[in-house]
Amino acid sequence: MDQLLTENELEARLRDVGAQRYHHLHPFQLRLQSGRCSRTEVEAWALNRYLYQACIPQKDAIILSRMDDPALRRPWRQRIVDHDGEREGDGGIARWLKLTDDLGLSRAAVMSGRFALPATRFAVIGYLSFVRDATLLEAIASSLTELFSPSIIATRTAGMLANYDFIRPETLAYFTARPVQAKRDSDFALAYVKAHATTPERQQAVIAALEFKCAMLWAMLDALEHAYVYAEPAPGAFRAGDARAPHLVAAA
Amino acid sequence: MDQLLTENELEARLRDVGAQRYHHLHPFQLRLQSGRCSRTEVEAWALNRYLYQACIPQKDAIILSRMDDPALRRPWRQRIVDHDGEREGDGGIARWLKLTDDLGLSRAAVMSGRFALPATRFAVIGYLSFVRDATLLEAIASSLTELFSPSIIATRTAGMLANYDFIRPETLAYFTARPVQAKRDSDFALAYVKAHATTPERQQAVIAALEFKCAMLWAMLDALEHAYVYAEPAPGAFRAGDARAPHLVAAA
Repeated sequence: MDQLLTENELEARLRDVGAQRYHHLHPFQLRLQSGRCSRTEVEAWALNRYLYQACIPQKDAIILSRMDDPALRRPWRQRIVDHDGEREGDGGIARWLKLTDDLGLSRAAVMSGRFALPATRFAVIGYLSFVRDATLLEAIASSLTELFSPSIIATRTAGMLANYDFIRPETLAYFTARPVQAKRDSDFALAYVKAHATTPERQQAVIAALEFKCAMLWAMLDALEHAYVYAEPAPGAFRAGDARAPHLVAAA
Repeated sequence: MDQLLTENELEARLRDVGAQRYHHLHPFQLRLQSGRCSRTEVEAWALNRYLYQACIPQKDAIILSRMDDPALRRPWRQRIVDHDGEREGDGGIARWLKLTDDLGLSRAAVMSGRFALPATRFAVIGYLSFVRDATLLEAIASSLTELFSPSIIATRTAGMLANYDFIRPETLAYFTARPVQAKRDSDFALAYVKAHATTPERQQAVIAALEFKCAMLWAMLDALEHAYVYAEPAPGAFRAGDARAPHLVAAA
């Protein structure tokens, strides 16, 4: 059977999951940040990832609904504020729409999800199901990809600014806010996981939960790479020229 | 607004969804049935699709749980019998395992799902969520891909037998039983949908439900094509030589 790991050993195992499986290693991610993506590929990435961004407060609300301790719920509810903001136009989802706006995509089309790849929708549904159906400890552990996000954000932002003339610093406002939030959130979640994964079985479960989350992010990039680099988008999914904002269609 | 279609017009629209979006058009399907798949690709297809096969009785149990009329439940429960059988070794899931057995895959590995592509798992979870969360009418309409399955089965079976020396008629026993079952099931579901989709809104919803199901089957083949034809399997997913049955490992 698996041995009980010390807290430091468990943290090392979790960080190793990120080193092996986080999407900073995905070929589409490397393509995106090195300027090898076409404009259509960048648009498809932003439009598909909107669905993931939009599900984050729902994911956090599910986790919140499963916590019976106010002391645990209080810090966790800040995650929902970070993404939904205090008012219209504020928060992480609105900042993601700044990116799709600047790419010339229609907000209505992006928000409807109807041009997204089916695989993106399935990944999002799978993530929401996981945090609903797994243990609370596993649901919290699945958020630990934020341990790895600050470094990918720095690389991606620098790469996209250097390589795409249609990307301005304001376009990537979403990413400016995230590293500080992600550090705070992942510090909290990591401390919780280390304190509560107190048996070998629970330790293996939290490692598997983090692998699950890495697989979910990986699957979204696989789907983009398949549809836009190697093959064709599924019927009905975004193609060049779809989902244009009305004022851009009028000008064309 | 959308017009109310006659029952025959609705049936024609549903059949048109199949003609445009069913996975008989997918490049990986064409590759599989024309003998262009490697042995590893056939194994990956069988191993991944096992997860879909295994979820079918759960999907039908969810639909059954939402029906309040015994007259509706009685014919529907036969679907669960068809897949689970009357005894160990019987039914559609056992027949699918005959296929993975003959390919030399370990039953324990196949049934654990641990070598499946994450995208396959997400598609299955998305399907179960759909039949749980959509209306009963939409859940029933999503089963109408069976209108199209008898023809794909004939083409696939003939193509696989002609093109792969490791496939024998008994290997494909699953498909021998399906066309008669699928015809009976889709006749029932089509009659239900035509009788209950009595407003333009419901008619559009059943068309969208069938599009959803086609997208789910399409996404599974996209994931296989990406992982095994164009790029690499996600970390941890099936690769050549994985999941071998123990007696084959010993003999090698």
